[in-house]
Amino acid sequence: MTETRDDVYRSRVSEKCEIAERQDPTARASTDGPLDGSEIESFATDGFLVKEQLLGASEVRSLVKEAERIRRNARDVEAAGVVKEPGGETVRSIFRVHRNEVFKTLACQEPRVVDPIRQLLDSDVYIHQSRVNFKPAFDGKEFYWHSDFETWHVEDGMPRMRAISVAINLTESNEFNGPLMVIPRSHLKYVRCAGATPEDHYKDSLRKQEYGVPSRDALEELTREERIRAAKGPPGSALFFECNVMHGSAGNLSPFPRIGLFIVYNSVENRLVEPFGGIRPRPVFLAEREVMPV
Amino acid sequence: MTETRDDVYRSRVSEKCEIAERQDPTARASTDGPLDGSEIESFATDGFLVKEQLLGASEVRSLVKEAERIRRNARDVEAAGVVKEPGGETVRSIFRVHRNEVFKTLACQEPRVVDPIRQLLDSDVYIHQSRVNFKPAFDGKEFYWHSDFETWHVEDGMPRMRAISVAINLTESNEFNGPLMVIPRSHLKYVRCAGATPEDHYKDSLRKQEYGVPSRDALEELTREERIRAAKGPPGSALFFECNVMHGSAGNLSPFPRIGLFIVYNSVENRLVEPFGGIRPRPVFLAEREVMPV
Repeated sequence: MTETRDDVYRSRVSEKCEIAERQDPTARASTDGPLDGSEIESFATDGFLVKEQLLGASEVRSLVKEAERIRRNARDVEAAGVVKEPGGETVRSIFRVHRNEVFKTLACQEPRVVDPIRQLLDSDVYIHQSRVNFKPAFDGKEFYWHSDFETWHVEDGMPRMRAISVAINLTESNEFNGPLMVIPRSHLKYVRCAGATPEDHYKDSLRKQEYGVPSRDALEELTREERIRAAKGPPGSALFFECNVMHGSAGNLSPFPRIGLFIVYNSVENRLVEPFGGIRPRPVFLAEREVMPV
Repeated sequence: MTETRDDVYRSRVSEKCEIAERQDPTARASTDGPLDGSEIESFATDGFLVKEQLLGASEVRSLVKEAERIRRNARDVEAAGVVKEPGGETVRSIFRVHRNEVFKTLACQEPRVVDPIRQLLDSDVYIHQSRVNFKPAFDGKEFYWHSDFETWHVEDGMPRMRAISVAINLTESNEFNGPLMVIPRSHLKYVRCAGATPEDHYKDSLRKQEYGVPSRDALEELTREERIRAAKGPPGSALFFECNVMHGSAGNLSPFPRIGLFIVYNSVENRLVEPFGGIRPRPVFLAEREVMPV
């Protein structure tokens, strides 16, 4: 990677945050898949799609049980894929859960999860990242607004916007426990963030962000004509969202813990190259570099 | 004040947080006032009462204008009644606004504000505390769960539960900008918090609480059969809430700042004595010691 490489999604190269236009189609959807025309249209327009009941209650119970089990095992170790709360020992995220047998089956083989993604991206896909997020009751911390793609492009070398995440609520997500919030239509713009990216930045950024942060002006612009939407719903509800959707979540002051499963799929035609930020690639638990189609 | 004074609402005297019973009536309401029987009943049962449109749009605009004006004037001074965000210079609260001409008229003379309070407390009242809270967009900080009465009793010497606050939304309060949250029926219990109270504790507690904090067990108990309620509503909407209601507010990650006006009325029959926590009284901007009936 050199500074001269032509990069339509350059970011963190200026002192000023700027809003640019998206350079990729918002949906390449084929007709071959479970989503109907209006769902595809809705995803292309808003950048996300809500599925009120993607998984059933008993499926979710098994996943919660496994998530709790690996959290207990993770608590006392400083494993690479385990991220703790800022200033605490509480486990906030466990990454690369698609290497776990229980989550792997869901992430790699479950048609309700994989087929909509394949359809929307109109290609085979592989798992770029997966994680379980735990937002503890009473002091679950906020996660500030960001576009995943901005980070994946600058820090991991994802070339184009051709990835989709599915966020599955493993517990009820309500207005009080810091639900995932998205800004509709924000995926149509690209916010070039200010500043540079230090090496090994990820070690802190997963706890608290300082780089790749959109300016307040940019966020005000993105929300000027859009109402924020929260991914509220019962256990098993899910949100499919495009990799460039601006999203975040508030803290959790409520007595209700929140557990969310995130699986990110990238098109096999969009495999990672050298990071565009000129840094060395982040560890594979954050960005798989091996393409294994699901 | 001595440690031997009999205190039904003792708190911060043990290492353990405990839930006790309320020792005061929940409503002494007279029939002489603007509230009807069902509203009085609702306040007595839940501990709060929502008024969707207490003030009109033009009234609110005047109040916002004045609030912004005094905030601008307050920003650069370390005035006693001005509290800033933890770790920042952003003004979070301005106290004793009932000494300001504009807010004084509302707080002392406006029947829509004062009459329900007088009716619910069945006595003349005076202003114990008043403030404007600013919860800035994008980084407004949370305020953890607490009972006002617990603090007012321990730190200010308010003898009994015979005070009521009115919280008036001066801007729209929605699920995204950290609305005031209350736990219904929590005023029927009294949470004796763990720990002691250091002198001059208030200087930090207004920024970030460490004392007078209910335990997680206590909060779980209070919310076991109750759904949290948020004081959402348009500008001019208001929440009357009893002094012992457990309440708090989450951070504000949204682009919508929130401004709230709080006025606390105490019964003239419940005037302050020496603080029950054995400390010297807090400054008058936090707790008026002079009883001036409105």
